[in-house]
Amino acid sequence: MHWYDGALYPDSKLPFDVADRGLTLGDGVFDTSLVLAGTMVWRDAHLRRLRESCTSLGFAIDVAAVEAAVDTLIAAQSDGALRITVTRGAGPRGLGPPPQPRPTILATMAPLRAKSFFVPLSLHVAAIRRNETSPTARLKTLNYLDAVFASQAARQAGFDDALFLNTTGHVACATVGNIVALHGIRLLTPPLADGVLAGTVRGMVLELCGSIGLDPVEQSLTLDDLAAADAVFVTNSLKLLAPVTRIGDVTKPVSTDLRCAALRAALSTMVAKECGVDPRTR
Amino acid sequence: MHWYDGALYPDSKLPFDVADRGLTLGDGVFDTSLVLAGTMVWRDAHLRRLRESCTSLGFAIDVAAVEAAVDTLIAAQSDGALRITVTRGAGPRGLGPPPQPRPTILATMAPLRAKSFFVPLSLHVAAIRRNETSPTARLKTLNYLDAVFASQAARQAGFDDALFLNTTGHVACATVGNIVALHGIRLLTPPLADGVLAGTVRGMVLELCGSIGLDPVEQSLTLDDLAAADAVFVTNSLKLLAPVTRIGDVTKPVSTDLRCAALRAALSTMVAKECGVDPRTR
Repeated sequence: MHWYDGALYPDSKLPFDVADRGLTLGDGVFDTSLVLAGTMVWRDAHLRRLRESCTSLGFAIDVAAVEAAVDTLIAAQSDGALRITVTRGAGPRGLGPPPQPRPTILATMAPLRAKSFFVPLSLHVAAIRRNETSPTARLKTLNYLDAVFASQAARQAGFDDALFLNTTGHVACATVGNIVALHGIRLLTPPLADGVLAGTVRGMVLELCGSIGLDPVEQSLTLDDLAAADAVFVTNSLKLLAPVTRIGDVTKPVSTDLRCAALRAALSTMVAKECGVDPRTR
Repeated sequence: MHWYDGALYPDSKLPFDVADRGLTLGDGVFDTSLVLAGTMVWRDAHLRRLRESCTSLGFAIDVAAVEAAVDTLIAAQSDGALRITVTRGAGPRGLGPPPQPRPTILATMAPLRAKSFFVPLSLHVAAIRRNETSPTARLKTLNYLDAVFASQAARQAGFDDALFLNTTGHVACATVGNIVALHGIRLLTPPLADGVLAGTVRGMVLELCGSIGLDPVEQSLTLDDLAAADAVFVTNSLKLLAPVTRIGDVTKPVSTDLRCAALRAALSTMVAKECGVDPRTR
């Protein structure tokens, strides 16, 4: 199900301007969120980040149109993975943006995969580094080819996903999620400056720490720090909190300890408060 | 004028699959070439690189379809800037490519700008580094947001274009062109490993050096090397050989010496041999 320029399309083939800079230059951003029981979970946080990302790119979006896209898609399908793509719109040949951009809003609702929450995964250390010198490292832009390459290499090496280090050798993120690590009572995650998206679930996890006696710490991390951690997780809006079972050669047994259970419970409670559905039951 | 899926469209709004990974993930490559007097200049070199780029991304293209697109567009417009975009085609949600990709071919002919060949330009040193650890640094992919950001910053600082250094501090390229520098009888250009596209004009310039007594050398370059060079140029298919007049704080007077004139003449002769038009007359 696709929403584009005010209309709903059941099929993905629709009248689209191929001069769109999202297509020609990757000049746009997107957001992926979880829709459960007719509610876009953490809607405000997602839409705020989308708006701020457009500002970082130097254009404004019509928030009312985005809200209408979300409402229309949810009315048609109450559970799903919602992707909102916003581009700078069509432009002439070349890099220079049009003086008065007319941003494109395209939203798509896809079915949720069965068993997507809290599912353990293994991480291959990518040969490609995350380029923290680029603003794109901190935005969910349409420039995803590094992630495509790294994810393919990870699968070929027998892993589920890839872990990016940045150009200084510090841990950045997975291809489609943030990294958080438990070390004693500290919950560690790389700072945004290390080339990291301000993930919605990352933000929620940092926020809930206090309520379960954990100390949230944003600091640069090395692979050794992850190896030494009690547990490592990938967070994103569709996986929520995925325990990492292996990072390269280092095996991480899925922790059964109380802090991990408490993290999962607290995050599930936050989701349930949003939409009335406890993700542990799905 | 646009060619898509076997048909010619005068307008850029056409029936397009918005699940195309070129749009959703930047999962594709493109090529820009010069069409003069009904000839795509260095056609074989351009199409070979396009084919090889797709191979690097892990999919094959229908070369006959690309050739048909080129022929159809040139028949409709004999002078122009031809852009051929190839994507991995439509795919389901997520990073994983479809097992049997059906690549998209989209080609567009835009008018040439008046005075685009050999026009001097100034270069702003970009804050964003070129990520030479990524294969995308050596391919003309749809991931052009770094170039969009850098180009915007350059314009705001009063320059024409941006110069990228790579993550080790070596010179990589301009946003849409390669860098070559004259130093005595040596013509220097960074090796591809430094995060550089194998530009068509770059290749031609390296090839013609012998005929005018220059020694082509691919080696890592620093900003100091460029400051010390007798002349610096940006090469691309539409600018051909653009003298660089300023790199950050360093002014480079446009050289009037014989080697520069010989370079320009030899490149113009190569273009004229392709299409019968000497670009110096345009």
